[in-house]
Amino acid sequence: MAETRVDAQALEAFCVAAMRAAGIGDEDAKLSARVFVTTDTWGTFTHGTRQIRGLMRNVRRGRLAAGAREQVAAEGPSWAMIDARDGMPPAISCRATMLGVDKARDTGMAYVGVRGSSHFGAAGYYANLIAEHGMFGMAMCNVEPCMTVPGARSRILGTNPIAWAAPTGTGRTIMLDIATSAVAATKIFAAKTEGRSIPDTWLVDDAGAPTTDPSIYPEHGAQLPMAGHKGYGLAVLVEILTAVLTGSAMMGEVHSWVADDPDPPNQGHAFLVLDIGAMMPREQFFARMATLSAAIKGADRAAGGTIYLPGEMEWQRREQALAEGIALPEDVLISLRGLAADSGLDATQFGLDLGG
Amino acid sequence: MAETRVDAQALEAFCVAAMRAAGIGDEDAKLSARVFVTTDTWGTFTHGTRQIRGLMRNVRRGRLAAGAREQVAAEGPSWAMIDARDGMPPAISCRATMLGVDKARDTGMAYVGVRGSSHFGAAGYYANLIAEHGMFGMAMCNVEPCMTVPGARSRILGTNPIAWAAPTGTGRTIMLDIATSAVAATKIFAAKTEGRSIPDTWLVDDAGAPTTDPSIYPEHGAQLPMAGHKGYGLAVLVEILTAVLTGSAMMGEVHSWVADDPDPPNQGHAFLVLDIGAMMPREQFFARMATLSAAIKGADRAAGGTIYLPGEMEWQRREQALAEGIALPEDVLISLRGLAADSGLDATQFGLDLGG
Repeated sequence: MAETRVDAQALEAFCVAAMRAAGIGDEDAKLSARVFVTTDTWGTFTHGTRQIRGLMRNVRRGRLAAGAREQVAAEGPSWAMIDARDGMPPAISCRATMLGVDKARDTGMAYVGVRGSSHFGAAGYYANLIAEHGMFGMAMCNVEPCMTVPGARSRILGTNPIAWAAPTGTGRTIMLDIATSAVAATKIFAAKTEGRSIPDTWLVDDAGAPTTDPSIYPEHGAQLPMAGHKGYGLAVLVEILTAVLTGSAMMGEVHSWVADDPDPPNQGHAFLVLDIGAMMPREQFFARMATLSAAIKGADRAAGGTIYLPGEMEWQRREQALAEGIALPEDVLISLRGLAADSGLDATQFGLDLGG
Repeated sequence: MAETRVDAQALEAFCVAAMRAAGIGDEDAKLSARVFVTTDTWGTFTHGTRQIRGLMRNVRRGRLAAGAREQVAAEGPSWAMIDARDGMPPAISCRATMLGVDKARDTGMAYVGVRGSSHFGAAGYYANLIAEHGMFGMAMCNVEPCMTVPGARSRILGTNPIAWAAPTGTGRTIMLDIATSAVAATKIFAAKTEGRSIPDTWLVDDAGAPTTDPSIYPEHGAQLPMAGHKGYGLAVLVEILTAVLTGSAMMGEVHSWVADDPDPPNQGHAFLVLDIGAMMPREQFFARMATLSAAIKGADRAAGGTIYLPGEMEWQRREQALAEGIALPEDVLISLRGLAADSGLDATQFGLDLGG
C-alpha cells in the first residue's frame, strides 16, 4: 500500500469546508481546523482531523450547537469562567486561551475555566498557543470515566489529560501532553487487534485484578492510572480545576461525546497562563531554557538510546509534515472520507487525495 | 522494642529550641517547627523533623544563613519573585505561600517563585497551607539530579516534587504530594538493606540499562522517572517554574543540601494559588467536592481493596498522632537525639522521650 501524504494547507481548507457544511461559523471552523491539522502534523493522529467527523455528527444530532457563542459567565483580574453553551470546543478553547493570555499580560498570571463543552482535541495545542505568545501555558480537560483507582474496580475518572508548554525563542516550544491513565486506550486496542498481551499495569478486569489480556476492553474492565496513586492524584487535580470549580459535569456525570447519547457532554476545560516577560527579561528566559535543553540533550546516553526534549519528536514530525506532507494513517483517511461523504464534499476539489 | 510515641506539641517546642540554639530567629524557628512536625503527623517521616539536624548543620557550616531575611526581588498584581538569600527554607516558603494567598485574594490567582533557597521539607505542607485559607494550592521544588530520562544514563533531573491541595470545608483537605521519580530513594535504600530485588522501573545501571539490583545505588546508577516520559516531562515542568523562571540554580547547578559541599544549594520553589471564593460560592465548591469524594469512596472495590481519597491516609495518621502521640521511627529518633546533642539540649526537659 502506497503511503498517502497530504498537504497541510489543503487538508485545513477541506476541514473548514466540512465544518461549514455542518453549520459551523467561519471563525469557529477556521480555528478548529487549525487545531486538528496542527495536531496531525505533530503525529498525534488520535486527536487530529480524525475527530472532526464525530463532532459534526454531534452537530447534526443536536448534541453540539453549531451556532452557539460562548459567554464569559464571570471574571476577575486574573481569571474568567466561560460557559461554552455546547458550542464548538476547539474554537471556544482557542478564545478562552487568548482571554487568559490577555489577562496574564495585565497581571502576570491567569486561570480560565470552561464548562458546558465537549471534546477539544489535544490539550497540548492550547498550552502551545500560550507559548507562541511568549508565555508559559497549561491546559487540561475532564473526560468521562474509563479509569479505576487503587483499591477499586469500577470506572471512576477519565483519562483527564494535562499539557504544558514553554517558549524557547526558537521555532519550537518545549511541551508535554499526557493522559493521566497508564497509556492511551488506542495502545490497548492495538494490542487487542494484534492478539498481543499487555503489561499488567494498564488494565484491571471486572474483579479489579490487574490483567495482561487486552481483549476484555472496553466491554469489560477499567484502565489504570499512570504510576498508581500518582496518576490517580493528578487525574483528581484535573477534575477539580476543569469541573468542580467550573460547574461542568463531574466524573460519571459527563456524557461521552462519542457515545450514542442525546445529552450534551458538558465537559470542562482549564487553562493556566504565566506571563514570563513580566517576571524576567524574555531573552534571559530563553537563554536559560537553552541551558536546560543543552544539559538534557548533552547527557550521557544509554546504549542505543536517543534523548528527546519534551515535544521534540512532535516538532520534528511537524517540520517533516510541512515539508513533505502529512503521512495520515489509514484510520484517519477512513474518517476523512466519511466526513467528505457526510458533508457532500469532493476532497479532490481541495487538491486532497484521501485514497480509498 | 517498645514503640515510642511523642507528643506533637512537646516535639514542636523541642524543635523550636533546637533551631533557636543554632541561631535561627524566633518566627523562623516556630514556622519551621510547625512545618516539620505537621509532616511527621502525616506519617511522611522522611521529610519531617528528621531533616532539622541537617539544616542546622548547614547553619553551623555557613551554608544556611540563620539571620537572613528574604527579599521580594520583583512583583506584580498576580506574582512575586523572592530571593531567599540562603535563609531558612520552610519559614521563607510559608511567607511566600501567604504572599501568594494575599495576591490571589486581590486578583483571583497568583504565582510566587523563590530562588536562593534549599530544602523546604514536604511540598504538600505549603499546598495545604493554601487550602487551609480556602484556596486551591500547588507547590513545587527543584532538587539536585538523581534521575535520568528515557534514552540517557547519567543523572539529569532531581526528584522534583509536585503537590496540590484543595479545601473541602471539613477539617481535612484533599491533597497529593509526589516525587516525579518512580519511587522515593528511601524505597530503594530499604530494598538494599533488606537484600530484596526491585522492579526494573526504578533504577538504571551505569550503562543505562534497567536493573533490579538496588545495591548499586546511590554510588552508581540513576533513578528513573515515574511513568517514563510522563514523569520526565513533569520534572521538566517543575524545573521551569522553580528554577528557569526564578533564577535559581538549574539541574546540575544545584548543590545538594545534604552533601559535604561548602556552597549554598540555591534551590528554587514555586507556589500557585487560586482563590476559589472569587470564582464560585465557597459552600457550592465544598458541596461539589463532597460529591466528588462520595463518588470515589463509593465506587465498587476490588477484592480486599480499600479506596483512599488523595491525602486521606495522611489525615487519618495525623488525627491518630494528635490523639495518641506520633510513633516516630527509629531513624527519626536517632536524628532527633543527634539534634539534641548538637544543640546542647536535654529533650526530657521538653517532656520528650526520644529513647536511645
